Amino acid sequence: MEKTIFDVPTVTLDDDSSSLLIIDQTLLPGELKQIALKEQPAIHEAIYKLRVRGAPAIGVAAAHGIYLAAKALDMDDTADFAAEFLKARDYLKSSRPTAVNLAWALERMTRVMLEKLDEGVPAVKAALLKETLEIQREDEETCRAIGEYGLSLLKPGDGLLTHCNAGQLATSRYGTATAPMYLGHERGYGFHIFCDETRPLLQGARLTATELSSAGMDVTLICDNMAATVLKKGLVDAIFVGCDRVAMNGDTANKIGTMPLAIAAKRFGVPFYVCAPTSTIDPDTATGDGIVIEERPAEEVSDMWYRERMTGDRVKVFNPAFDVTDAELITAFVTEKGILKPPFDISLATVK
Amino acid sequence: MEKTIFDVPTVTLDDDSSSLLIIDQTLLPGELKQIALKEQPAIHEAIYKLRVRGAPAIGVAAAHGIYLAAKALDMDDTADFAAEFLKARDYLKSSRPTAVNLAWALERMTRVMLEKLDEGVPAVKAALLKETLEIQREDEETCRAIGEYGLSLLKPGDGLLTHCNAGQLATSRYGTATAPMYLGHERGYGFHIFCDETRPLLQGARLTATELSSAGMDVTLICDNMAATVLKKGLVDAIFVGCDRVAMNGDTANKIGTMPLAIAAKRFGVPFYVCAPTSTIDPDTATGDGIVIEERPAEEVSDMWYRERMTGDRVKVFNPAFDVTDAELITAFVTEKGILKPPFDISLATVK
Repeated sequence: MEKTIFDVPTVTLDDDSSSLLIIDQTLLPGELKQIALKEQPAIHEAIYKLRVRGAPAIGVAAAHGIYLAAKALDMDDTADFAAEFLKARDYLKSSRPTAVNLAWALERMTRVMLEKLDEGVPAVKAALLKETLEIQREDEETCRAIGEYGLSLLKPGDGLLTHCNAGQLATSRYGTATAPMYLGHERGYGFHIFCDETRPLLQGARLTATELSSAGMDVTLICDNMAATVLKKGLVDAIFVGCDRVAMNGDTANKIGTMPLAIAAKRFGVPFYVCAPTSTIDPDTATGDGIVIEERPAEEVSDMWYRERMTGDRVKVFNPAFDVTDAELITAFVTEKGILKPPFDISLATVK
Repeated sequence: MEKTIFDVPTVTLDDDSSSLLIIDQTLLPGELKQIALKEQPAIHEAIYKLRVRGAPAIGVAAAHGIYLAAKALDMDDTADFAAEFLKARDYLKSSRPTAVNLAWALERMTRVMLEKLDEGVPAVKAALLKETLEIQREDEETCRAIGEYGLSLLKPGDGLLTHCNAGQLATSRYGTATAPMYLGHERGYGFHIFCDETRPLLQGARLTATELSSAGMDVTLICDNMAATVLKKGLVDAIFVGCDRVAMNGDTANKIGTMPLAIAAKRFGVPFYVCAPTSTIDPDTATGDGIVIEERPAEEVSDMWYRERMTGDRVKVFNPAFDVTDAELITAFVTEKGILKPPFDISLATVK
C-alpha cells in the first residue's frame, strides 16, 4: 500500500540516530518525500527554507540537529567541545530567529550539555540523545493528549472545520487541532472535515487538506470566505484551531482569519475550540492587546496568484500574519492537561 | 497624462455609432486597452470571454451589440429585417445565458424594434440607436444617483471597505458600490479604501483595487480574512458592497464572502451598506431562503494558485459563488431612488 503523510514521521531521527529524517514540505502536495539530513548546513537550510515548519516540529528538528552536531564533534576536551557546541547552537538558531520553539529546544539541549559537561564528552553525547528523544516523545504525547480530550467533545459523523495547519506536519505526530481528527479516524468516527485554504500562503489547502485526506479522511477544501456559508448550512458541529500565543485572559493569537471564523461560529452557534499545548499559554501576556502582530511582505498577497502582480501598481497591501480572537468567542481550550472552560482568567492559571 | 481606467468608458459606442468600444478586462491589471468591435461574432466572444463583465455593463454591451447588428442589415423588407434581428438577438443572448441584464436589455431593444416596425427599417434603426443610448444613459444615471446618496452618508477622510467588483468596470460609469468613492474623490474627500481580494477569482484585487487606484485613490488590498482585523483596528467607517439579488425582506445575495463581512461589521459597529439599483430588488423573492446559490467548478479553488493542483488528489471542494446576507446585518440599501432603512419589508416595497 502506498505510504501516506500520516505513516511518515514529520521529523525524527533514523534508527541508529545518525541522521535527521524529515518530510520535505516544500514538495507537498505534489510529492511525499522523506529526506535524510546529516550535516549542519543541510539542517539549517531545511529549517530556513520551510522544508520542516510548524513551531513544535521546528523545535524537534533543532533538538535533533544540535544532537547530531554534538555527536560529530570528535574531541575529548570538554571546554573545546562546549565551545563548538555553542557555535553550532548559534548557527542553528539563526535559521529562523523568531521561532520560539526553536530557541526553546536549543536552550533545553544546551542546559543538558552544561549539566553533564564534567562527566566528559561521551556522557554529554549520551545525555543529549536521551534529551532530544524525550523532546520528541513529549511533543507526541502532548498532541495525543490534546487529541483524546478533543475527541471527548465529539460524536461519530460530526462535521469539523479547521483553519491553517496545526496538523501532524507541524508537530512530531497527530498535530494539535488535527489530533482529535486523527484519533477519531482511527476509531471509525467518520468525520466530515472542512479545511479553510488559509490565504495568503494556503497552508490549509497545501498541507492540512492534503495530510488529512492522505490519511483517508473525508476532506472538503473551501476558501476562507466560504466558512460562514458552511456553518450556516449546519454542516459543522465543532471548529478546532491551533494557536501561536494564548494570553492569560484567553485572548488568542493564531493565523490571520481565525478571528472572523470565531465571530461567524458564535453567530451560528458552533463551538469554537482552541487546541493549545500549555507551552503556548504565556504568563507574561495579560490580554490580546499585548500581542504584537507580525506584518509580512506585500508580495505574498499581491503577486503570487499569476506568479506576476495581480493588482494595480499603485495599490498598497496590508498583510498581517495573525489576528487575535477575543476570549469571549472561544468555547474552550483543549490542552494536554485537560479542557479549560470559561472563566479563562481562572482556568488558564491552573495549568501555568 | 496617462489615461486611467476611470477616463476610459467600460462600454460605449464610438462617435459615429459604428463600433462597440470596450475595455478588454481580460488584460487587466496588466494593460489598459480599449478595443473596437463591429462584427457579431467578436461582440459575442467579448461577452462570453468576460472581456466585458458585470451585469449592468453586459446589458449595455448587448444593447449596443444588437443595435450594430440591426444597423448592418442592408434590407428594406420589414419582415425580413425583423427575422434577421431576432436571429442576431438569439445569438447574442447565447453568449452568457444566465446573465439577467443581458436578456433584459435585448428584450427592451426587441420591443422597440417591434413597435417601430410599421414605420420602416430606417425608422427602426433610428429608434434602436436612441434606445441603446438611453439604456447606457440610464445605467450611468442610476450609478451616479447611488453615488450621491451613498456620499451623503460619508465625511472627508473616511475609511471605506468593499468586496468583489461592483465598480465602474461592471457598469457604464461609476459602478454601484464604488460610486460614492468616485464622487467623493472628485470632490476631494480623501478616502482611504480597503479592497478585499475576493477569492476565488480575485475580482477585488484584479479589478476594484486596480480601477480605484488608477483613478488616484488611496487603496489598500487585503485578503478576505484580514477584513475583520481592519474593522477591529477602527480603520473603516463604512462598508459598501453591490448585490446580485435583494429579497423583499432585505436578505441579499452577493459574491461569496459578503455575509461573513457583514457579521464582522455588526460585531465592530461598522455600517454595512448594500448599493442596489432597484432593478436588483426582486418582487418574486420573499426571503433569502428562496435564493438558489450557484456552485462553480472545484478547480477555481483547488488548481489556480500554482497553475497546478495545490491540494491532495482526494480532497473535495465546495465552491459556492454567492452567499446570502441576512437583512438584520444590513444598515441600509443605497438605491438610485434613495436610501432605504429598516424595516426593509416596508422600505423596499416603496420602490417596486
